[in-house]
Amino acid sequence: MSPSRPVITLTTDFGSTDPYVGVMKGVVLGINPEASLVDITHQIEPQNILQGAFLLGKGYHFFPPHTIHLVVVDPGVGSSRRPIILETPGGRFVGPDNGVLSYVLTDGGAQPLMGKADQVGLPREWRAYHLTNPGYWLHPLSSTFHGRDLFAPVAGHLSLGVSPQEMGEEVDSLTCLPVDAPTWEDDRLRGRVVHVDRFGNLITDLPSSLLDEASQLKVDVGGSRIRGLSASYAQGEGLLALIGSYDTLEVALKNGSAAAELGAHIGDAVLVTSLADG
Amino acid sequence: MSPSRPVITLTTDFGSTDPYVGVMKGVVLGINPEASLVDITHQIEPQNILQGAFLLGKGYHFFPPHTIHLVVVDPGVGSSRRPIILETPGGRFVGPDNGVLSYVLTDGGAQPLMGKADQVGLPREWRAYHLTNPGYWLHPLSSTFHGRDLFAPVAGHLSLGVSPQEMGEEVDSLTCLPVDAPTWEDDRLRGRVVHVDRFGNLITDLPSSLLDEASQLKVDVGGSRIRGLSASYAQGEGLLALIGSYDTLEVALKNGSAAAELGAHIGDAVLVTSLADG
Amino acid sequence: MSPSRPVITLTTDFGSTDPYVGVMKGVVLGINPEASLVDITHQIEPQNILQGAFLLGKGYHFFPPHTIHLVVVDPGVGSSRRPIILETPGGRFVGPDNGVLSYVLTDGGAQPLMGKADQVGLPREWRAYHLTNPGYWLHPLSSTFHGRDLFAPVAGHLSLGVSPQEMGEEVDSLTCLPVDAPTWEDDRLRGRVVHVDRFGNLITDLPSSLLDEASQLKVDVGGSRIRGLSASYAQGEGLLALIGSYDTLEVALKNGSAAAELGAHIGDAVLVTSLADG
Repeated sequence: MSPSRPVITLTTDFGSTDPYVGVMKGVVLGINPEASLVDITHQIEPQNILQGAFLLGKGYHFFPPHTIHLVVVDPGVGSSRRPIILETPGGRFVGPDNGVLSYVLTDGGAQPLMGKADQVGLPREWRAYHLTNPGYWLHPLSSTFHGRDLFAPVAGHLSLGVSPQEMGEEVDSLTCLPVDAPTWEDDRLRGRVVHVDRFGNLITDLPSSLLDEASQLKVDVGGSRIRGLSASYAQGEGLLALIGSYDTLEVALKNGSAAAELGAHIGDAVLVTSLADG
Repeated sequence: MSPSRPVITLTTDFGSTDPYVGVMKGVVLGINPEASLVDITHQIEPQNILQGAFLLGKGYHFFPPHTIHLVVVDPGVGSSRRPIILETPGGRFVGPDNGVLSYVLTDGGAQPLMGKADQVGLPREWRAYHLTNPGYWLHPLSSTFHGRDLFAPVAGHLSLGVSPQEMGEEVDSLTCLPVDAPTWEDDRLRGRVVHVDRFGNLITDLPSSLLDEASQLKVDVGGSRIRGLSASYAQGEGLLALIGSYDTLEVALKNGSAAAELGAHIGDAVLVTSLADG
Repeated sequence: MSPSRPVITLTTDFGSTDPYVGVMKGVVLGINPEASLVDITHQIEPQNILQGAFLLGKGYHFFPPHTIHLVVVDPGVGSSRRPIILETPGGRFVGPDNGVLSYVLTDGGAQPLMGKADQVGLPREWRAYHLTNPGYWLHPLSSTFHGRDLFAPVAGHLSLGVSPQEMGEEVDSLTCLPVDAPTWEDDRLRGRVVHVDRFGNLITDLPSSLLDEASQLKVDVGGSRIRGLSASYAQGEGLLALIGSYDTLEVALKNGSAAAELGAHIGDAVLVTSLADG
């Protein structure tokens, strides 16, 4: 369970100006000096749980399966949201139970619970734990920075082989945002912008697999309409729609920023209409 | 003295566009391939010694006590400022003797020397060394980049167990900026903005411990006046004063950047008046 | 050939907003958990091969000689440009054969091939390999992200001691941009801006060694003329020319950004005229 050099990743909305990320690493290395720490990104928009969930969900597959993913996008820090560990065959996750693991959960086929809109039951053989044992935290526990005081030390102990049962109590459901793969309603598909990349490209949550079913498309976003899919950023002129590196629909502006051109942001609606008959 | 995987942190004003930080790491790893390198921040404002001193001083506690902290905010590179090692029970530091260790020194209770405004005597059992032995540097030594040519190799050798005595000569005082905890003068406290974070919040050097003494406050900064302390960023409207993650007074703008709103910068004065009688 | 903790550096144009760099590291660590990963920079301008070549070429010398440098500035991904390994006495390089190794090649004295303007023959004892063996790649191989699917896994296997011969076929020439050291034509030297640093300084490709030959200079860039070399950023007023940390001619604006003042960009021409007679 514990390789000699365990990998621990960090995904946060802390940016790079403040020493917060470095301090979390210091706490981990104080507990396990053998940890190999890797940044996924710290440029999540402040408190944007959906964006964090998307980027983590698209990235964790490429790490070894015993990797511990420390995820701190935590607007509810200090409130009653639960701190958790989630163990899956493809990775272990430590963070707040606020939906930031939504793409991990839906990838694994987590099922909505009856009568609780935002709670999902865990896939078979997955285990989750509510972190309740303060013996594995820093003290005093601040009310503003659980990344440092709770999540980092728990990740450090987990990487040393401490069992999650010792650090918390097993739970059978977790919080999940409505990120299930959208489905066609007649000839229409409704998605969202979930990320804006370095170049101003709008990354949506509409997976390529769905779009394959349409022979031709029009895409509506930010008051503009795009017809057809381009094969690459280089093809065509002006605004383009294409399948990007996240394997989802992307909207780009040739030689410019689609986000700036359209005044578009994370969360904006994207509508796709299939033109089966041209 | 030398754990198998020694931690070396880096705090600089080099930013992330240039390869300077990477090159320093290359030099360290060429000397000690086992070093575990951690960035604290590289976004210190160019040559802002006070900001570097504050962020290092607030962060180093969270690293294991044998950690080596490499600190390069060095406007005097090439001049006569001394390159030094400082050894304390809570961490070891390598950098220029220009005040960038001020918060480390005052935390430890360093005492001002008679007749030398900017020099402090070292706390008991602390040791400092002026790095004078070129046998542990890269050659030719540039006059512009001692981070690469002097501080990084010294940190590498230190992490291998080379004694500071071999690399330099012991000294009994170091340079310290006037960062001592401010004190109340009648009902007034004068502090400074020492950091602006990712969100435009103004971080001051006024510690929470002092503010506890006032039943009610008004805060003057950048021509604006704020009455009372908020419990969180979410409470109240407009400009807020609160105790932030650095455990000091912070000025924030709800849903915006206080720095932009006030045109405020690092170094600006912050005045707190106690309203004991309302 | 394979130290216990092999160093692998990363130089890309991926920025820090997206998880691309983290994902590449995950792929490497899945293959070799002992790898020590170091960022050189990820802020290369999108697809700016010349800038990537310059920053890599100025930085790699400071890493241990067995370091593997993973370089992904790859506008031709998905096209016919060759993925390669280059082995030299000063470092090993994995990336696209598109000129991004130009400064490495010319440093080593690579010679232009007859009749092929952009191809150079390798220096003695250097070896290059066209990566053709898909057994060392991720599958499916995307057409947009060879950094993750091809270069990262090859670097991981190389760090484990897999021989380049197993991963590809030896080649005897590589692509090289025209970055050879400029030469004086009568009293004139023509160079280019190859990098703009954090402070807006314009870094040129004109090496200090050439400029030593001129007793006095004038520098023309962006419609402005600068007379003489300053010894430091602090000397003189307004626009300055000096020898910077890259050991090349640099144009700076005292207390400001030369790039903003001149509207200058990477690729802009810089002309130096020698005033031998004042």
